[in-house]
Amino acid sequence: MNTPSHTVRAYSEELNALSDEIARMGGLCESQVTDCITAVVRRDPQLADTVVKTDAEVDALETAIERRVIRMLALRQPMASDLRTTIAAYRISGDLERIGDLAKNVGRRVHELNKSEPLDLTRSAERMGRLVVANLHRVLDAFASGSAEECIAVCRADEEVDEHYNSLFRELLSFMIEDPRTITASAHLLFVAKNLERIGDHITNIAEMIHYLVTGAELHRDTRRETADGG
Amino acid sequence: MNTPSHTVRAYSEELNALSDEIARMGGLCESQVTDCITAVVRRDPQLADTVVKTDAEVDALETAIERRVIRMLALRQPMASDLRTTIAAYRISGDLERIGDLAKNVGRRVHELNKSEPLDLTRSAERMGRLVVANLHRVLDAFASGSAEECIAVCRADEEVDEHYNSLFRELLSFMIEDPRTITASAHLLFVAKNLERIGDHITNIAEMIHYLVTGAELHRDTRRETADGG
Repeated sequence: MNTPSHTVRAYSEELNALSDEIARMGGLCESQVTDCITAVVRRDPQLADTVVKTDAEVDALETAIERRVIRMLALRQPMASDLRTTIAAYRISGDLERIGDLAKNVGRRVHELNKSEPLDLTRSAERMGRLVVANLHRVLDAFASGSAEECIAVCRADEEVDEHYNSLFRELLSFMIEDPRTITASAHLLFVAKNLERIGDHITNIAEMIHYLVTGAELHRDTRRETADGG
Repeated sequence: MNTPSHTVRAYSEELNALSDEIARMGGLCESQVTDCITAVVRRDPQLADTVVKTDAEVDALETAIERRVIRMLALRQPMASDLRTTIAAYRISGDLERIGDLAKNVGRRVHELNKSEPLDLTRSAERMGRLVVANLHRVLDAFASGSAEECIAVCRADEEVDEHYNSLFRELLSFMIEDPRTITASAHLLFVAKNLERIGDHITNIAEMIHYLVTGAELHRDTRRETADGG
């Protein structure tokens, strides 16, 4: 039979396949974020390289999702709510791709960090990272369960991530001032912390999209919240 | 008459309107990037605030584009090439939104930078910024003219932006080590430079999308290019 399967499959089945791909992509990103933090803490270059390599899989999934979305839009005229879900999935895959990229970026810095003596502040970065991982896990659960409450909780928890970042930023600067020999390593750790903070922002983007899909209402959180570094 | 105009308007007219919105968004981003660099160099907090304020307009345009794209996809079943153009426009608006956000972030840092003495390296950041602005201008022209050659030129010119960033990164670290009093300001300028480098990456994303739209072929540039900061 030459009939392409998508012409006989229902749109809802395509949506399920799309959700599965998002879940798989989310799982990969979660291990990337977990591993990049562990690689920083344990100064483990092999684990860091694994994070970098995994990113190619994440990118490939994003491309697959994009192709599926375009195919779905092209071959079927989705109803309003299906269309919204399809576009939301597409956007979520974009945020996950950025998360994978930022984790990869942290992984790459491990090699630079390992050129200097370990910094005490690595532990603070680790605590911040654990919060980010927990939040990512929660938002992926919320995507599976469709829980609007969890989305609100995730956005609130991100404020704590920002607080961690703010104090880490200040501590790192004092550290550099007190002991200029730590400057190179501190600058790299500053970027690590900034990347974790930005991963947190992408997680809240995802939470907002799920919340909107589930309730039809926008989450009015303060997205313009400034961090201590002015950015 | 209650007939919505979009049901009588041709898809190509909707595409023209979409292109106009992208061009307007691009123009706003171009002034944001230009102004944020000038605000850093002239230590001008008012201009910095203008950059921050303009970002709301950029965001509003992105939302308008997203709505239009969803409406276009929902109400018409675009042909393959129209669909590709529509999705590309949607993605370009996403990159422009990120560019606006990064310029806003640079604008916010002006207040922090102005708390310290001016750094000599501000001029290097300015040179890097001028290159980024020129590249953004070029890619917006390429969007209007559909020139594949310009897209290739833009991607090549971004390598120069990365070289600027790499030397600035190294210079800033030596600067901090030599004179710890400059650490806070240098850390902010480091983020300014990183944001400009990331704006450059979004510009090449746009160039790649236009190139693909125009030629149907992907631009195989080295997207995995590493910068001196390891990221």
